[in-house]
Amino acid sequence: MNTFGEYFSFTSFGESHGKAVGGVVDGVQAGTLISLDVIREMLARRSGRGLPGVSPRAAVEPDQVEWLSGVIEEGGQWVALGTPIAFLIRNQDARSQDYAWLRHSFRPGHADYTYQAKYGLRDYRGGGRASARETAARVAAGAIAKQLLADKGITIRARLLQVGQETDPVKIEQLLQAVQAAGDSIGGIVGCVIEGLPAGVGEPLFDKLQARLAAAMMSINGCHGFDYGFGFDSLALHGSDLYEKDGQPVDVLSPQAMSGGIAGGISDGTTVRFRCLFKPAATIRRLYGGRHDCCIAVRAVPVVEAMTALTIQDFLSSE
Amino acid sequence: MNTFGEYFSFTSFGESHGKAVGGVVDGVQAGTLISLDVIREMLARRSGRGLPGVSPRAAVEPDQVEWLSGVIEEGGQWVALGTPIAFLIRNQDARSQDYAWLRHSFRPGHADYTYQAKYGLRDYRGGGRASARETAARVAAGAIAKQLLADKGITIRARLLQVGQETDPVKIEQLLQAVQAAGDSIGGIVGCVIEGLPAGVGEPLFDKLQARLAAAMMSINGCHGFDYGFGFDSLALHGSDLYEKDGQPVDVLSPQAMSGGIAGGISDGTTVRFRCLFKPAATIRRLYGGRHDCCIAVRAVPVVEAMTALTIQDFLSSE
Amino acid sequence: MNTFGEYFSFTSFGESHGKAVGGVVDGVQAGTLISLDVIREMLARRSGRGLPGVSPRAAVEPDQVEWLSGVIEEGGQWVALGTPIAFLIRNQDARSQDYAWLRHSFRPGHADYTYQAKYGLRDYRGGGRASARETAARVAAGAIAKQLLADKGITIRARLLQVGQETDPVKIEQLLQAVQAAGDSIGGIVGCVIEGLPAGVGEPLFDKLQARLAAAMMSINGCHGFDYGFGFDSLALHGSDLYEKDGQPVDVLSPQAMSGGIAGGISDGTTVRFRCLFKPAATIRRLYGGRHDCCIAVRAVPVVEAMTALTIQDFLSSE
Amino acid sequence: MNTFGEYFSFTSFGESHGKAVGGVVDGVQAGTLISLDVIREMLARRSGRGLPGVSPRAAVEPDQVEWLSGVIEEGGQWVALGTPIAFLIRNQDARSQDYAWLRHSFRPGHADYTYQAKYGLRDYRGGGRASARETAARVAAGAIAKQLLADKGITIRARLLQVGQETDPVKIEQLLQAVQAAGDSIGGIVGCVIEGLPAGVGEPLFDKLQARLAAAMMSINGCHGFDYGFGFDSLALHGSDLYEKDGQPVDVLSPQAMSGGIAGGISDGTTVRFRCLFKPAATIRRLYGGRHDCCIAVRAVPVVEAMTALTIQDFLSSE
Repeated sequence: MNTFGEYFSFTSFGESHGKAVGGVVDGVQAGTLISLDVIREMLARRSGRGLPGVSPRAAVEPDQVEWLSGVIEEGGQWVALGTPIAFLIRNQDARSQDYAWLRHSFRPGHADYTYQAKYGLRDYRGGGRASARETAARVAAGAIAKQLLADKGITIRARLLQVGQETDPVKIEQLLQAVQAAGDSIGGIVGCVIEGLPAGVGEPLFDKLQARLAAAMMSINGCHGFDYGFGFDSLALHGSDLYEKDGQPVDVLSPQAMSGGIAGGISDGTTVRFRCLFKPAATIRRLYGGRHDCCIAVRAVPVVEAMTALTIQDFLSSE
Repeated sequence: MNTFGEYFSFTSFGESHGKAVGGVVDGVQAGTLISLDVIREMLARRSGRGLPGVSPRAAVEPDQVEWLSGVIEEGGQWVALGTPIAFLIRNQDARSQDYAWLRHSFRPGHADYTYQAKYGLRDYRGGGRASARETAARVAAGAIAKQLLADKGITIRARLLQVGQETDPVKIEQLLQAVQAAGDSIGGIVGCVIEGLPAGVGEPLFDKLQARLAAAMMSINGCHGFDYGFGFDSLALHGSDLYEKDGQPVDVLSPQAMSGGIAGGISDGTTVRFRCLFKPAATIRRLYGGRHDCCIAVRAVPVVEAMTALTIQDFLSSE
Repeated sequence: MNTFGEYFSFTSFGESHGKAVGGVVDGVQAGTLISLDVIREMLARRSGRGLPGVSPRAAVEPDQVEWLSGVIEEGGQWVALGTPIAFLIRNQDARSQDYAWLRHSFRPGHADYTYQAKYGLRDYRGGGRASARETAARVAAGAIAKQLLADKGITIRARLLQVGQETDPVKIEQLLQAVQAAGDSIGGIVGCVIEGLPAGVGEPLFDKLQARLAAAMMSINGCHGFDYGFGFDSLALHGSDLYEKDGQPVDVLSPQAMSGGIAGGISDGTTVRFRCLFKPAATIRRLYGGRHDCCIAVRAVPVVEAMTALTIQDFLSSE
Repeated sequence: MNTFGEYFSFTSFGESHGKAVGGVVDGVQAGTLISLDVIREMLARRSGRGLPGVSPRAAVEPDQVEWLSGVIEEGGQWVALGTPIAFLIRNQDARSQDYAWLRHSFRPGHADYTYQAKYGLRDYRGGGRASARETAARVAAGAIAKQLLADKGITIRARLLQVGQETDPVKIEQLLQAVQAAGDSIGGIVGCVIEGLPAGVGEPLFDKLQARLAAAMMSINGCHGFDYGFGFDSLALHGSDLYEKDGQPVDVLSPQAMSGGIAGGISDGTTVRFRCLFKPAATIRRLYGGRHDCCIAVRAVPVVEAMTALTIQDFLSSE
């Protein structure tokens, strides 16, 4: 199904080759001010213009959102009515409605094969739905959630932490240019921090905060790994590293506590930190030609923020 | 809440210091044969007896399951009635019902602090529920799911892949003994493979197979990371590694395809492979005394299998 | 929240005084043919044109549906893609966007008071959402479900059974005209039959077929009562009426069995029969002027069919 | 599935011929005092002892509840821990585990036929689960909810309003005795009032208060009709009856407003009133012998209270 969240929910619709993508956001309180600027800024980052490793031809114009319900303009501002907010983003390149993608052969690392296995060729749940195009609706919905959180002092910021083995920002940019020039692709890590989240968000058993965040991140195309706190780096540590030389425990809220802002499935009031691994894209220019990002992590940054915001707001709305 | 799964669901109950832990498994078809041996075998592994790095004092007797409903014995076999299967596992050490844990000070890497923040001291949703004790019920429920899957030719096997930086089984055992002797703790990786899973399991958008598996694994205490396919190792690769030297794509179903058995959120019919990172435990014998596992990954192996089985069976029951 | 159904779901959006009402239907199989004629026919009945007791001024033009996603036209037919079907119905009388309704005083039998109590004046979840306007989206979505059912040989037909105390169709029409002329309102009963439903639909415990149908009907504005089988008329009967004079039980599938097509929460393969009571509308022309239906049951007929179809299809999609 | 409620949930288990029936109640706040007396009182009424129309042989001993988790005794009182409350009620007549009911022929008005159609003979979801025995678990769980509501000043009381055509309490008792003596059965109406419910409970669209109450009531065996406010009696009224002779509306909160305590799906702060129609039981002593209630409405009274309490508490827990 195509709904994310239970108490603050986002229902996604639209095919990449159809009229529009869009969504319905349910659970916004009446009177909430919605800044279109925040939405535009996130959609602009998703478009990739001016980002390293995104060729000028691959970058697209930021998408225009049309609001169908749930908001009214009052004095130059958008105000939520408390009803479902429905919006759409028209697909501009309507000419491509020839659905030529249906005739693609199976490529490794692509979903062509599994969609065919699950649905058969005539069904667009795969090709038409699961393309990067759909993330535009996620970003627009997530931008609304991000604002609700910001109103409560909770900020969400993601950024590109690593590309291949490289973590230095300058060298990352050079590496991306080299891979782009070679017509190849490379993996990367997007890090995300949630600041201002109060202690107490998450459930002790199955709905741990990290469990829901992991599911949200792993629902993004190309994300093949997730960790939080020290994550996989904790293999280099021992439990005793959590204690001072005199045997006193480090402060439970300090970074050395390895918590990543979460303990027992519940936020501890410190900064939540997690990482998302994006694998090298399978479709590369050297072999297929055309316009392809050399590192999908680059444009995934606002999608990570959007899915994080939807997840956290759903938790807050459940209380 | 304390229910996992929608179409094949497991509702967990019981406090570590109360009368019993147990659960209700809903969605088993009438007539299914249930082997108590499979359940005992998984509970025995969870008990830790004879496992490396588990001190003899820490290991416990495997738990005895009492069946309350949903099954009848017929000719020496347990047969499912199609109704909810309720079971309980009595807590043997009933003497410890003094709830002394309530008086613990806050330890780093533990949930004491967050439970206090969320619920207050009087509430056992944290300390009494989120202890490792509760995983006995998960393992019993998961063992049922594992049998349903085995009946369809789907097998789930987890094992300890890495401890600290070590991956060689012999050296892992030595390392565990050394850490145990030092009264310290260390992190580890549990790998899991699902064999025989047909192509087509998972949903293209939010309920991707990897998203649900990640959430299930991250709901296990101490699991701080998840990846599948090449996961974080794919940072050493390029997209061109997916192609032969002549530019032909590697077979979409071969291991080189990096898929980990999943593409576009949907199983591709090959072996599904994923990894779970367990951090070093915060409570160490050197400082706290008592009986503590030096590597929580060791006894997490059957829990990983159980949560995997519950996740996969929930997907299959939804179709 | 604004979603109906779990396995075949309808998410509703739109305010009566906003740009549009509409919805997202999730769960239609790829390749399903959608007849726009069926949708138009149901929307036409909802518009009330030519129906008894609906004044010419109250009747409106049938609504035009715009399809945003999930369907493509192929050879003059609409074909489902297997993806969410999003649609909108523009509000034609856009001039009325002055939201004057917010200034209404509280009327008896109206929701003004409760919406104010729950949400406060600025929130349109009441006035803007819960108006009869929203039922246009329900009818469009239900018309899709009705077609899926018809493809399986299941037909759903509702009709006006009773107005006030009158059950004779000719006298009903005269009664409606008299009440309309008097500027008053009156209650009525809509009966609904489901034919061709196979035995086995419904769950034995909480999700009984009659429980879900009752909830769906009671979610329609003005519906204050529901019964099935002999319903409230069974107060005139005894259990022995279910048996022949010789003590033999009547055929379990005959009408005398009082089952209404359901036993133990599960359809028995015979015609399912239920009734919905619509109370007299509180807003009457004699006192308020304007255009008001004298019997809301009249135009509720296609809404009853729509909600029935959504309910039944959700059950079928769960299997 | 066997779970009722989303935010305050009750998972039911147990077969009528098995070891025990029971349930898991999730969502009770830590520190809540639980009175076993309230639970016993409701179970006693369900047992039918001393009630008119229940033969002494049909009445049973009130059930004993065993608490497995989620509560501890402190100073003679039961206190909720905030964790899932699991309980069981052992089936005393264990000898009857010969499952002889499986060999019954199909009786009219019974579910034998539909269970067979849906599940086949080997499955106890029907016969073993859907018997009146399962309502013991509903009553125990509902008694907990009823206490949580009472703590907030909300009281729920159901009573037998009508048997056959008779509404006078004295004559009802005589009628029941006559029907009992004749070995026949008769239908009845259980009325329920919720007092102290604050305005604002319910949702405007699909989750209207009356929709959820109707579903809860129609999930009780033998309930074939539901109405609220004036319900089916409003067929004798006109909209103008809501106004004084001078055209002034009656007070929106007065009984004449016909609201039944609900407007637009939301409670209005006055007493909520609804009715449940129970049909004449199909199994009658005159033909089958044995012990059978002559009017199932009599013992349904505490079940109506229990399901009402579970429904209202689920609404309150969602906020």
